[in-house]
Amino acid sequence: MTLNQYIRDIQDFPKPGIVFKDITPLLANPKAVKECMALLINNLRERNIDKVVGVESRGFFFATLLAYELGAGFVPVRKPKKLPFETIAASYDLEYGTDTLEIHTDAIKKGERILIHDDVLATGGTAKAVCELVEKLGGEIVQCNFLMELSFLNGREKLAGHEVYAPLVY
Amino acid sequence: MTLNQYIRDIQDFPKPGIVFKDITPLLANPKAVKECMALLINNLRERNIDKVVGVESRGFFFATLLAYELGAGFVPVRKPKKLPFETIAASYDLEYGTDTLEIHTDAIKKGERILIHDDVLATGGTAKAVCELVEKLGGEIVQCNFLMELSFLNGREKLAGHEVYAPLVY
Repeated sequence: MTLNQYIRDIQDFPKPGIVFKDITPLLANPKAVKECMALLINNLRERNIDKVVGVESRGFFFATLLAYELGAGFVPVRKPKKLPFETIAASYDLEYGTDTLEIHTDAIKKGERILIHDDVLATGGTAKAVCELVEKLGGEIVQCNFLMELSFLNGREKLAGHEVYAPLVY
Repeated sequence: MTLNQYIRDIQDFPKPGIVFKDITPLLANPKAVKECMALLINNLRERNIDKVVGVESRGFFFATLLAYELGAGFVPVRKPKKLPFETIAASYDLEYGTDTLEIHTDAIKKGERILIHDDVLATGGTAKAVCELVEKLGGEIVQCNFLMELSFLNGREKLAGHEVYAPLVY
C-alpha cells in the first residue's frame, strides 16, 4: 500500500503559498490507518512510554491511537482557554503567524516517559513549544513522533537534542 | 472500576453557571480508557459500521479509537474553515451561544452505515447538526454515541428518530 495516495495536497490552505497535506482520506481508510500505526509505533513498544502527548487538533487522531496501542495515558496539548483545569502555557512562532499552547499542570508526573505526537513536522516551532511544556512538568521526552516531515523546512534543527521520527518524509 | 472518579467537575467553565465534565484524568489512565471503550462499543461490532464521525475536538478522542476497534473509517466534523477540501455546513444553537460545523463532501458515500460519536450529549444541538450533515451526504445513521449524557438537558428529544446511546448518565 502506498500511503501517499491517501494524503491529498491542498493548494493555498490555510493561506496563499501553503500546500496543505490533508490526511482525511487516510483517516477514512481503516487499512491505511493500521499501516500508519505500524510505521508510527516502530520500536516504541519496548520503550516504556507512560504518556502520549497529542497536539490539537490533528495530532489527536494518531496520538489517541498510539496511547491505546502502547497501553499509555493520553494527554492533550490544546489552544488557549480550551483546557478547563490549571494550565501552563508556551508560545511559539508558526510557519504562518504565532500561537500559544497549554497543558494541564497535573497531566504529567515527574520522571514519566513521554511520547510527543503531531501529524506534521514543519518548522518545528509547535513541537519545540510542546517539548518545553513537557519538560517544565518534569516529563522525560522519549521521542517526538510525526506522521509526516516537511524536510525542506528543517524542523529537526529546532528539536536538536530530541529523537525525531517521521515515517513519511517530503 | 468506577469511571466517575476519572471525570472531574469544573465549576463555571467555559462560562459562569456551567459545570464542565473534564475527561482528561480519564484519558490519562489507559485502564479507564479500555473500560470506556468496552462500554462504548457495546453491541456495535455486529452492526457493520462503515465510518465513525467524530465531533471537534473532544469527540475526536474516542471516535478515532472506535473507528480503529470497529475496523471503520474515521471522519472528522470540524469548526468552520478547519477542513481544507470542499465542505457542507450546518448551524445550530448551543447550550451557550450558536455555532457551525462542517464536513468534507467526499467523507461519506451514499448508503454507508455511520456511527456518530461525541464526548457529551447536552442539549443535543451539536449532534442534531451532525446528523443533518451525515444525512445530506446520504449516510445511514446507525447510532448517536456519547460517553456521557447530561439527561437533565433532554438532548434525546432533539435526536428523536435516532438511536441514542451513552454509558454514563448524569
